[in-house]
Amino acid sequence: MPTQQSSKKNSTGLSITIRVELNNRVGSFAKLAGIIQECHGMLGGIDLVKVENNFSTRDITIDMPGEEEIENLKNLIAENDSLELVGISDRTFLMHLGGKIEITSKFPLKTRDDLSRAYTPGVARVCMAIHEDISKSKSLTIKKNTIAIISDGTAVLGLGDIGPEAALPVMEGKAMLFKEFGDVNAFPLCLATKDVDEIVRTVQLLEPNIGGVNLEDISAPRCFEIERRLKETMSVPVFHDDQHGTAIVLTAGLINSLKLIGKKAEDIKVVIAGVGAAGTACTQMMLQLGVKNVIGLDRKGSLDSTRTDLNESKIDFLKMSNPHDEKGELSDIIKGADVFIGVSGPDILKVSDLKLMAKDAIVFAMSNPVPEIMPEDAWPHVRIMATGRSDYPNQINNVLCFPGLFRGLLDAKAIDISDETKMAAAIAIASCVDENALSEEYIIPSVFDKNVAKSVAQAVMETC
Amino acid sequence: MPTQQSSKKNSTGLSITIRVELNNRVGSFAKLAGIIQECHGMLGGIDLVKVENNFSTRDITIDMPGEEEIENLKNLIAENDSLELVGISDRTFLMHLGGKIEITSKFPLKTRDDLSRAYTPGVARVCMAIHEDISKSKSLTIKKNTIAIISDGTAVLGLGDIGPEAALPVMEGKAMLFKEFGDVNAFPLCLATKDVDEIVRTVQLLEPNIGGVNLEDISAPRCFEIERRLKETMSVPVFHDDQHGTAIVLTAGLINSLKLIGKKAEDIKVVIAGVGAAGTACTQMMLQLGVKNVIGLDRKGSLDSTRTDLNESKIDFLKMSNPHDEKGELSDIIKGADVFIGVSGPDILKVSDLKLMAKDAIVFAMSNPVPEIMPEDAWPHVRIMATGRSDYPNQINNVLCFPGLFRGLLDAKAIDISDETKMAAAIAIASCVDENALSEEYIIPSVFDKNVAKSVAQAVMETC
Repeated sequence: MPTQQSSKKNSTGLSITIRVELNNRVGSFAKLAGIIQECHGMLGGIDLVKVENNFSTRDITIDMPGEEEIENLKNLIAENDSLELVGISDRTFLMHLGGKIEITSKFPLKTRDDLSRAYTPGVARVCMAIHEDISKSKSLTIKKNTIAIISDGTAVLGLGDIGPEAALPVMEGKAMLFKEFGDVNAFPLCLATKDVDEIVRTVQLLEPNIGGVNLEDISAPRCFEIERRLKETMSVPVFHDDQHGTAIVLTAGLINSLKLIGKKAEDIKVVIAGVGAAGTACTQMMLQLGVKNVIGLDRKGSLDSTRTDLNESKIDFLKMSNPHDEKGELSDIIKGADVFIGVSGPDILKVSDLKLMAKDAIVFAMSNPVPEIMPEDAWPHVRIMATGRSDYPNQINNVLCFPGLFRGLLDAKAIDISDETKMAAAIAIASCVDENALSEEYIIPSVFDKNVAKSVAQAVMETC
Repeated sequence: MPTQQSSKKNSTGLSITIRVELNNRVGSFAKLAGIIQECHGMLGGIDLVKVENNFSTRDITIDMPGEEEIENLKNLIAENDSLELVGISDRTFLMHLGGKIEITSKFPLKTRDDLSRAYTPGVARVCMAIHEDISKSKSLTIKKNTIAIISDGTAVLGLGDIGPEAALPVMEGKAMLFKEFGDVNAFPLCLATKDVDEIVRTVQLLEPNIGGVNLEDISAPRCFEIERRLKETMSVPVFHDDQHGTAIVLTAGLINSLKLIGKKAEDIKVVIAGVGAAGTACTQMMLQLGVKNVIGLDRKGSLDSTRTDLNESKIDFLKMSNPHDEKGELSDIIKGADVFIGVSGPDILKVSDLKLMAKDAIVFAMSNPVPEIMPEDAWPHVRIMATGRSDYPNQINNVLCFPGLFRGLLDAKAIDISDETKMAAAIAIASCVDENALSEEYIIPSVFDKNVAKSVAQAVMETC
């Protein structure tokens, strides 16, 4: 839906800074501002670099909608006699130079005394204390407060299998979020293999250094086996965020939505489009919440008793879903549904489908960046609309969960994550929306609400 | 040599803080100070915690020589009516709580704009740029400025095979040194295996994330095979610090020593006690410097043509050493030697051996913490004496090498470390001692000389 997208704010991270020499004649800047507007740019900060006799040099930061518009901007500036483009830099790329995270000391090392305690010879006593009682490594080393973010780069954002090197900027960003919101030290490790055995073995060998594992952007069905085998063999919590993080935040949103419209989990009919890693975890958690009737759909339609083409994980999905064995396409199944959940792809849900839903319909269209239906289209026909996007109300964003979850797990020295813990996290997120403030456009707290991670951590600790 | 050791400064990292309630009678503090002195403690900072009617509470920091003296201190305080010990804490252990390093963001994440550039959706463009040209990961991710410190905990300090958990505090300390002196981000990974194949494979799989590998405290002969196989297969520099770091700093010290006493590398006879990982690397580098006559000794005596018990690596060592096929024990081989190098164990070199050495004898007694001979014993009989200890002149400390070395390798985007690079590092370290300042007690720069890492980095870059 390009027309809808280009009418939105420029929130795609395409922020550029241009350095321009402007002729000192009256109206030069106005011309430049006009060109920026013509190219759909949003003017940001303006800094004066220098003023000379006939011209001044300025750095101008602009949010642009796309690469094409940037090209257009360059051309229009070049065509204008009173303007000269000196340079152009992309703020997103600048921010990534040399990586976005660093490994720093908690104490300065300025004197021999510092050195002798942090390193030899003093460190030897700490080493021996751990050697004599290995459980002390959970308090005297980084294991106490450090997790690994493990990916193989096979299912990165909506980009697919782009490889471990290309996945690393996402994992670095995630490490930033862990630190910012949960004060959790996270190191990103994108592994140069897609082999399940090798990934499992590597993560096992890292156990002495870490108090938890966050699996990320690993394609299904490999992610299921990796998570299962690691959970079975490791003594630290293992969490696949794409599955369980999504499920927890969705559940938080669903809890508040049902509260707002006065329906009970036991009574609702839920249709979920997408039965991969995220869809499976969301469904399991909704069942735990008390939902009885969830119907899954893949590209071929409903998962029902007539399907003979289902793989193992879809057979498992069917076992826990579709109690009335409904059959058909989305437009058949959606009839009378109270909730639609999309973890599939852009634009699969039509306005005509919405019209078939029950009164006070709830839509979680979480495909990113383009949801299953755009909010503008859905709003007239549903009561509650949520997406994964930051530029609409009700953003279902995993950052509401993972920093607080791991903060609580680390503080509790947890060795596993239970279903009870995950549900406690969901309830904690939901409860960060004050009952008085709860509304159709505020069913889930803001990602910048610092209270969320603290509440989640506390709730998680109490279950460990 | 306990008497010599206890006469030294209390530099073992045994720094404690005691909280004591002192009766407000005149002379209470003097009594406490007397007890501390009696227990061989060195009084550090004193903080007043609170004053009440009859007593005051103070925190007193004391450097203690050993655990035994701390017990004695506790007992003597308990016996004294005007003193009460409220608590005792060990500053070295306190420093280690929760680990010594953390993973931090280079930029704050305070606004949606920050988030959209560091994480989704902006990060996707950076990912795709790397996906299209993988070499960009060397500039747009942590790979540009990050290395891994890899150990299996099998040969940690002088403590031996204490396991990966217990080795971690050493590796964390090393990471602090990398950051402090070289601004290199280093993450410590102590692997839960001693299997060479598993260690090699794990490090290979980490390559997307790192610009270099520092192997640390891995026992011989496994360390040789691990280093060789990683160097053959990886496109980032691989460096075993216990071997090559020691060799580089020793060579720096030797260059300056020979300059000071006016001997040439080609003319000297060197005896080296210890022919393991460090001894082998030191010998290779001395040969590269131009030394012709190096004789190695293990516990059974000289490596010579009569030995039938040599393993593969010792046979290799013999091939490059002992050109005149000298035979015997240390006291035989040391005759006429210009240089003794110890990478073996405490107290193996006697004063009577020193008396057999050539004029202007040079001794590098690098066993730590107790050297092959104590400086006090050696000084009357040698011209230059160096150890690994911080409490004597001429400390041969690897921290003079590794931060600057990896700084240079990362800046050069190096894919390997050559012999030329290692020699350039040694020469750069040596040249940080100004010719006018060069003396018997100053053949190697201080570990706190910030100029060293810069000089090493620059020299390393020029060879890459």
